[in-house]
Amino acid sequence: MEVTRTNFNELLDDINNAIKQASFIAFDAEFTGLEDTKHGHALPFDTPEERYTKLRKGSLDFLVLQFGLCTFKYDNKKKRHIAQPFNFYVFPKPYSRQAPDRRFMCQSSSIDFLVSQGFDFNKVFCEGIPYLTPTQENALKETIEQKHLLHAQFSSPAFTSPHGQDIGPNKGPIAIPDDQKSFINGIVDQISIFMEKSEEESLNLPVCNGFQRKLIYQTVRNKFSSVHLEAKKGEKKDRYICVTKISGEEEMKMREGAKQAAERAEIDDAVGFSKVVRMISQSGKLLVGHNMLLDVMHTINQFHFPLPEEYEDFKSMTKCIFPKLVDTKLMAQTHPFKDHIPVSVLGDLHKTLSFKPFELAEVEFPKGYTNYNDNSKYHEAGYDAFVTGLCFASMKNFLGSFQKPPKDFVSPSSPLVEPFMNKLFLMRNFEVPYMNLNGADLTANRDHVFHMTFPKDWKSNDISNLFSAHGNVQIFWLDDTTALVALYKKENSKSAYDDLHVQKSNFTIQKYKDFLSFSDGEKHNKNSHSKSTVRKRSHNETDNDVPSKKKKTLNVAAQPFVYKQPDVISEGDDSSNTSNTSTTDVTMVDSTHNTQIDVKEDVKEADKLFEETAAW
Amino acid sequence: MEVTRTNFNELLDDINNAIKQASFIAFDAEFTGLEDTKHGHALPFDTPEERYTKLRKGSLDFLVLQFGLCTFKYDNKKKRHIAQPFNFYVFPKPYSRQAPDRRFMCQSSSIDFLVSQGFDFNKVFCEGIPYLTPTQENALKETIEQKHLLHAQFSSPAFTSPHGQDIGPNKGPIAIPDDQKSFINGIVDQISIFMEKSEEESLNLPVCNGFQRKLIYQTVRNKFSSVHLEAKKGEKKDRYICVTKISGEEEMKMREGAKQAAERAEIDDAVGFSKVVRMISQSGKLLVGHNMLLDVMHTINQFHFPLPEEYEDFKSMTKCIFPKLVDTKLMAQTHPFKDHIPVSVLGDLHKTLSFKPFELAEVEFPKGYTNYNDNSKYHEAGYDAFVTGLCFASMKNFLGSFQKPPKDFVSPSSPLVEPFMNKLFLMRNFEVPYMNLNGADLTANRDHVFHMTFPKDWKSNDISNLFSAHGNVQIFWLDDTTALVALYKKENSKSAYDDLHVQKSNFTIQKYKDFLSFSDGEKHNKNSHSKSTVRKRSHNETDNDVPSKKKKTLNVAAQPFVYKQPDVISEGDDSSNTSNTSTTDVTMVDSTHNTQIDVKEDVKEADKLFEETAAW
Repeated sequence: MEVTRTNFNELLDDINNAIKQASFIAFDAEFTGLEDTKHGHALPFDTPEERYTKLRKGSLDFLVLQFGLCTFKYDNKKKRHIAQPFNFYVFPKPYSRQAPDRRFMCQSSSIDFLVSQGFDFNKVFCEGIPYLTPTQENALKETIEQKHLLHAQFSSPAFTSPHGQDIGPNKGPIAIPDDQKSFINGIVDQISIFMEKSEEESLNLPVCNGFQRKLIYQTVRNKFSSVHLEAKKGEKKDRYICVTKISGEEEMKMREGAKQAAERAEIDDAVGFSKVVRMISQSGKLLVGHNMLLDVMHTINQFHFPLPEEYEDFKSMTKCIFPKLVDTKLMAQTHPFKDHIPVSVLGDLHKTLSFKPFELAEVEFPKGYTNYNDNSKYHEAGYDAFVTGLCFASMKNFLGSFQKPPKDFVSPSSPLVEPFMNKLFLMRNFEVPYMNLNGADLTANRDHVFHMTFPKDWKSNDISNLFSAHGNVQIFWLDDTTALVALYKKENSKSAYDDLHVQKSNFTIQKYKDFLSFSDGEKHNKNSHSKSTVRKRSHNETDNDVPSKKKKTLNVAAQPFVYKQPDVISEGDDSSNTSNTSTTDVTMVDSTHNTQIDVKEDVKEADKLFEETAAW
Repeated sequence: MEVTRTNFNELLDDINNAIKQASFIAFDAEFTGLEDTKHGHALPFDTPEERYTKLRKGSLDFLVLQFGLCTFKYDNKKKRHIAQPFNFYVFPKPYSRQAPDRRFMCQSSSIDFLVSQGFDFNKVFCEGIPYLTPTQENALKETIEQKHLLHAQFSSPAFTSPHGQDIGPNKGPIAIPDDQKSFINGIVDQISIFMEKSEEESLNLPVCNGFQRKLIYQTVRNKFSSVHLEAKKGEKKDRYICVTKISGEEEMKMREGAKQAAERAEIDDAVGFSKVVRMISQSGKLLVGHNMLLDVMHTINQFHFPLPEEYEDFKSMTKCIFPKLVDTKLMAQTHPFKDHIPVSVLGDLHKTLSFKPFELAEVEFPKGYTNYNDNSKYHEAGYDAFVTGLCFASMKNFLGSFQKPPKDFVSPSSPLVEPFMNKLFLMRNFEVPYMNLNGADLTANRDHVFHMTFPKDWKSNDISNLFSAHGNVQIFWLDDTTALVALYKKENSKSAYDDLHVQKSNFTIQKYKDFLSFSDGEKHNKNSHSKSTVRKRSHNETDNDVPSKKKKTLNVAAQPFVYKQPDVISEGDDSSNTSNTSTTDVTMVDSTHNTQIDVKEDVKEADKLFEETAAW
């Protein structure tokens, strides 16, 4: 169901009912851009807190233009889900001069990608649903109430502002300049004739500018007692005044009352799409997304509250607004799914889940809703939300196959799903696979990670050879002359550093934490000239304006990690206790649920992640 | 003539010829936004330098999306102009992964305004002509040349990067992960069959991701000697590899050569619209704009060079790139035009110039060009450029009517036009009407300007009364409790200040320069808490996110200045010396040309300016 400013209000009840009846909800958002690199790139060894800080600074100036919501209700008899997908176009059109006039960022490649996928920018800019955060809504309401109060106090014409355009300073009548006198006299004549002779109820004055309208207001209100004036806007934003005959003081009051009610309703309209986000929040329903961290951050920031500076505050705020979140990308990259899912990009995941050992959940759509079973429209937010929900439904059911006896259907509130709850996938992260909203994050041990600078002609082999005495390495190229290098054998961290950092050679090596604090120092002391332009560039470079072959890519080492695959887990009935017979170096222990989760991070995935980022 | 990526190259010669033959050129640009208020609002007492600094920081993150160019050539026989209008759609689509991926800002109200005027965002994002600054162009060329050099050096398959996608770190072959082996083997089989049995010349491999393409490249090049691979992009940005049979080493070299030539041509294409701006610059022709400061700043910044921090450097740079500029808005507000032109907004100006004492210049359009005489399309850049040029042609001819004997036609290079040369109108400025690129700017004496804070219920009359002993005042409201106040009688500045600043009362008064240095101090010391939130808000407030009744409006005093009108000047034949018989307080002396220019700044105009800004 496509939802725009035009049909939003009439659909609001349907949306509310769909949310209320849902067993879970999936969502997805399309943005005007992803990352403003001037605040630093996401790095593969970021802690969740570092990543949050970078995204908060570098991504929130972009805007959500399309919000996909798909509710899933399980029909016990038919053994299938009823899905109600909504594809919302949203845009912060300032509904009046008092409304916030938002500035937002766009990224050319993202815009280009969206148009190539058929995204209709004219539609979103013309018909996008407006929205206000609660703070903005309250401020506007207060302004309107103050204005109405003022109107009641000073209802003399000179002190009345036309149509709320001049809230704020509006401090007294204006002398009519000489060259406006004939214009104003003409208007007065026109109104006199209208009042005396016309049988029409109202008269539209000619289009004129704000100053002229102000002059008309003050003049007409002084000269005519039984007319009501109202500023109106033509199709092309031309503004004009509509004159109406009224019977007297009583009707004037009635009309003023109606106008004030309309102004209040206008604010309610302006709250727009935020109402849907509030409904989702208030429902407390399980909310599913695919690689959802940015979606969650944007949704809160754009429709609820500006995101807090402190990471811990963000975690609390998110849990408060969306108490139950599940990320299908994290699921797909986690045991027991990852063994069967080579690529976790949404489209690939969808395909993979259509075949054994998985079974795609059956879904039907009520009349009036797009049948997304027959229409694949990747990157339309509504479709992506639907596919995300479908993947979730199919993956959770797969968890039932390990139970004794196996179960075809697993409820979204089953303890089997619990281990994935409130863990948000961290894109391009080699160390910590997710952000844990339920408690402490996994700690990123980065003692085995080094920052290196070297001559331009070095290749992966040069670096690998350098470290060969200390085992294999994983390489994250920052640019032609700098890279992050991680030791496979973490126990060799000290010996490798001791060995290499004393070598007088054409390279430098630095512990990762020293590299970070150096970069931070750079940031805090921006005016000072960098002593090492190479190092500075490696962390803070913007590839915004000047094309550069030093642009970062997520190339990885020639000899990547090869992880041992843990055995398939066996689960007790509806129990969240799982047992693993084998673990690997990168198996993470979830302290809250005592469940082992491990994350695939090999060459392919890293490259795939990069591919996905590049392709959005 | 609508110009997009599709027809740009074929029209380039026509555009070049039109520019070369023109007697003058008019232009106009449409932006994604006007002003990011976080860098401070334009204030009516800004010096040109202060204004430049604010615009440079607050406006250049917005983007030019449409550029209107209209060349005017005079046909001596027909006594009319031949106009060739071009309406360019421009968009910085990144043509490859090496190209700059520009981030840019949008302002909701501006976007909303543009769509309401029928602006087609889908068209600009899909079909916009790309562009590169010279710096970007050179960097890309260097990258490509280095890549080709590298290719020549290491033409072993393992070191060759596919289609330039991996310039930068590309340092050796990658081991094929287990789960990709069957995919790669399938591809190898497919190519073997194609090579042996197919009669087709080429084979498109299935769509796959970047990592898979990389594996295909290195595998295929090792296994097959007589195939050529080329990465291609499908309509929906799907990437795939096209396999072609080749006869041997010779054909391989030929194909590589062709590919490299294509890559160079691709950069040339990417320079795109910048070529037009370079043509305009190199022509040295007179360039006319209406209220053109922002257009000039954007055009230089987006297509030539980032604007310099120093104001004087900007002036030099502009003179160097566009040696002759004339601003029709400044003309319209200057003697001898202003007496006959009540409103200088482009549309109004156009109308006014259609009647006596003016005579609209006659214009015809060659075949194939939109006849803008019959199609008014305000806010389409091409149309606005045409109307601007038309207004200029008409106004310059009007100057001939003062000559003895009167002349019907005045050449754009006539000394009569000289007084307006290289003066750019300063919007919403009460003191200095223009920026002078030809030399020193007029100095803004602001001794008679004060910054005041006062209780919320104050109105214009309260302020006027306060100053009544010192003459009339002009009031510029900053918000409900702060305003800038200018004395009409500048000679009373000291007495007014001495009188008022010692009063222990519910208001404060501050000299304008103290207010500025206080605000600057605030900016330099952002982390410190303001001791006077009112003052801070008055200068730095952003009305970006939270709607506020304190939003600044350009309301003005109840008793505005009333300027004496200078007499009509009389001019000698083709002489730039003019003589005025009367001057006023705000008559400015242009030191370069010894020509008096004065600027209308009364209530109406100020409000009109505000109206225009609000409406773009």
